[in-house]
Amino acid sequence: LLRIAPAEREQRCTILELRTHLPVSYRVLNVDRPIFDIANTQLADMIGNRRVLVVADERVVDLYGAQLTSYFERHTTLAGIIAMAGNESEKHWGTVERICNGAIQSGLERSSVIVGIGGGIVMDTAGVAASLYRRGVDFLRVPTTLIGIVDVAVGIKHGFNFTGKKNALGTFYPPIGAVADRRFLKTLEGRHLRCGLAEILKLGIVREPQLFELIEDYGGELIATGFSEPSAVADEIILQAQTSMMEELECNLYEQDKRRLADFGHTISPTLEAATNYALHHGEAVAIDMLLSAAVAVVNGICAEPDFERIRRVYEGAGLPVYVESLTPDLVRTAFEETRRHRGGALNLVVPTRVGNATFVQDLTASQLRNALALMR
Amino acid sequence: LLRIAPAEREQRCTILELRTHLPVSYRVLNVDRPIFDIANTQLADMIGNRRVLVVADERVVDLYGAQLTSYFERHTTLAGIIAMAGNESEKHWGTVERICNGAIQSGLERSSVIVGIGGGIVMDTAGVAASLYRRGVDFLRVPTTLIGIVDVAVGIKHGFNFTGKKNALGTFYPPIGAVADRRFLKTLEGRHLRCGLAEILKLGIVREPQLFELIEDYGGELIATGFSEPSAVADEIILQAQTSMMEELECNLYEQDKRRLADFGHTISPTLEAATNYALHHGEAVAIDMLLSAAVAVVNGICAEPDFERIRRVYEGAGLPVYVESLTPDLVRTAFEETRRHRGGALNLVVPTRVGNATFVQDLTASQLRNALALMR
Repeated sequence: LLRIAPAEREQRCTILELRTHLPVSYRVLNVDRPIFDIANTQLADMIGNRRVLVVADERVVDLYGAQLTSYFERHTTLAGIIAMAGNESEKHWGTVERICNGAIQSGLERSSVIVGIGGGIVMDTAGVAASLYRRGVDFLRVPTTLIGIVDVAVGIKHGFNFTGKKNALGTFYPPIGAVADRRFLKTLEGRHLRCGLAEILKLGIVREPQLFELIEDYGGELIATGFSEPSAVADEIILQAQTSMMEELECNLYEQDKRRLADFGHTISPTLEAATNYALHHGEAVAIDMLLSAAVAVVNGICAEPDFERIRRVYEGAGLPVYVESLTPDLVRTAFEETRRHRGGALNLVVPTRVGNATFVQDLTASQLRNALALMR
Repeated sequence: LLRIAPAEREQRCTILELRTHLPVSYRVLNVDRPIFDIANTQLADMIGNRRVLVVADERVVDLYGAQLTSYFERHTTLAGIIAMAGNESEKHWGTVERICNGAIQSGLERSSVIVGIGGGIVMDTAGVAASLYRRGVDFLRVPTTLIGIVDVAVGIKHGFNFTGKKNALGTFYPPIGAVADRRFLKTLEGRHLRCGLAEILKLGIVREPQLFELIEDYGGELIATGFSEPSAVADEIILQAQTSMMEELECNLYEQDKRRLADFGHTISPTLEAATNYALHHGEAVAIDMLLSAAVAVVNGICAEPDFERIRRVYEGAGLPVYVESLTPDLVRTAFEETRRHRGGALNLVVPTRVGNATFVQDLTASQLRNALALMR
């Protein structure tokens, strides 16, 4: 503890300064055998014999309820399972409250664990509850969607929608980790697979040219086979995407630096999603945001048009949306204003300079925006 | 980012580990001139010219509303003032929601500041809102009660009551600091002053014999004069209490270690407060908890009876409660169970070994508890 000397003219005030740091570490594990196989302790080993409250997508409960109950009862002390719909409309305080109520009713202790099983919506909501209950209990994620596996589950952010604003409230709260099983993806709708692919493309475009090439070559096949074939490529893409995202996060985990490559595709998309009342899914909005950002780069002379076309061809191959009617100049302006409120006054629009590299743009004239929108169509 | 080698038998699973740390620092400043004096920039200097949302106790707004409006308008960009009642019954989600709504309506940015002005209840509730809004904006505390100045405002905890449980939900979220002005105490009710004195006594009994002696000698006079006379002693006691508490916190800010001297008086008190429906205030419940803990130490032969009597005499001199009807053996058992759920299975009841030193007790027989309760009366 430091006793700070006050300024000359304020001799009689006293100042104490506390300085410390919070060590943060967490693991992301990709299982090699089925995650809820009773003989596979890879998930259980992350928990130990502790009290567990499971928060799971209701479809996960339908499909795997009996299996996961047996698994957690065998390896941990299962306090309860709370099912929730994995829809954006369920991502509100009422659901957080329901989880916290369940935690209290099942006597969850401060040393207990909340396990969130599902896509981003389930994990985001359960994560808020875990970060608030008793001022924070351990939280473990089991992502069942591609976006969950490569994006949501490798970071520390949680949130819920409030007064029509996406993730208006939430926390930065490190989980103890994530355990991923790509077998879940076999039964995932194509639309959700594409959303995940958009987040992988994000990293490919701004920092991983090899990852981008893998998607160029195998994107269509992976989508068609539920990310099961070619199997080695699926594993490789997932591991590269997780590694790249975690490298990005590691040096700026709490986002003190507001210039973030990982924000590529995340400037216009939150406003766009909300404007469609979440008819457009997160990954789809991210895809459109990324393509517009790439078009902005072309219009500004930062990126060559062939690179833009190369990106658009990958979208077409994978069936990602390249445009949506709601994407008006007005909406983009509104999104920029909101973004500036969130990034210390700066826009920090991430735009590619070529595939695998990116920079930041701080402003856009009306005609540049118009031309970029025209280029997209 | 580390790629962890899996165990021999799990060759095909992949493990990534992210390791970093969050630097934490904050300042507690005791002003030497009136805090809202327009010429005194000690408070404003902690904020800079940023957008500010003030959350203040409604009595603070009644008494200082015009003055604090001028102050913040002059030195910062005042986005709004939200008044709330500083009663335990207002410390619920609805109030957090109201503050977050105010933040959205006033266009509060991620780089903006929420300033909580009031006692523990106001600062705890505003602190939760600050930690959730946009996943966290800067939070500055201006405590107006003694318990606020020496206890709440020097730590990083925020919380609200949920389903009848005190602080069942909340966050550990470092503020940017606190600015304290003991002039507020002149108009504080004696009852609230005594609550603050209980938290100071907490530190005196478990680790600061000199602080305890100062209260022995001046406690009555300080309570009678609203902590204004003797002036030098008031300053000294406040600074010693803040320093002692911050030293305790610094090495265990996130309470990873569940053996905390600062938990003295905080084992039975949350349950006791809730049982009286908060008719008993926090500091009063803490005082009773401390005296029972001291009695437990005497009954267990850990502390000599004269030390216990010395503590009780200080209570009598300061007008602190020494007993309350709700303190039954059943309530104590319930509180112990709840405490164990919160401290990793251990009770860690802090008890003094003498004035200025303490240890931990893990269990109590029914007869020891009965004898301790008898000793208190």
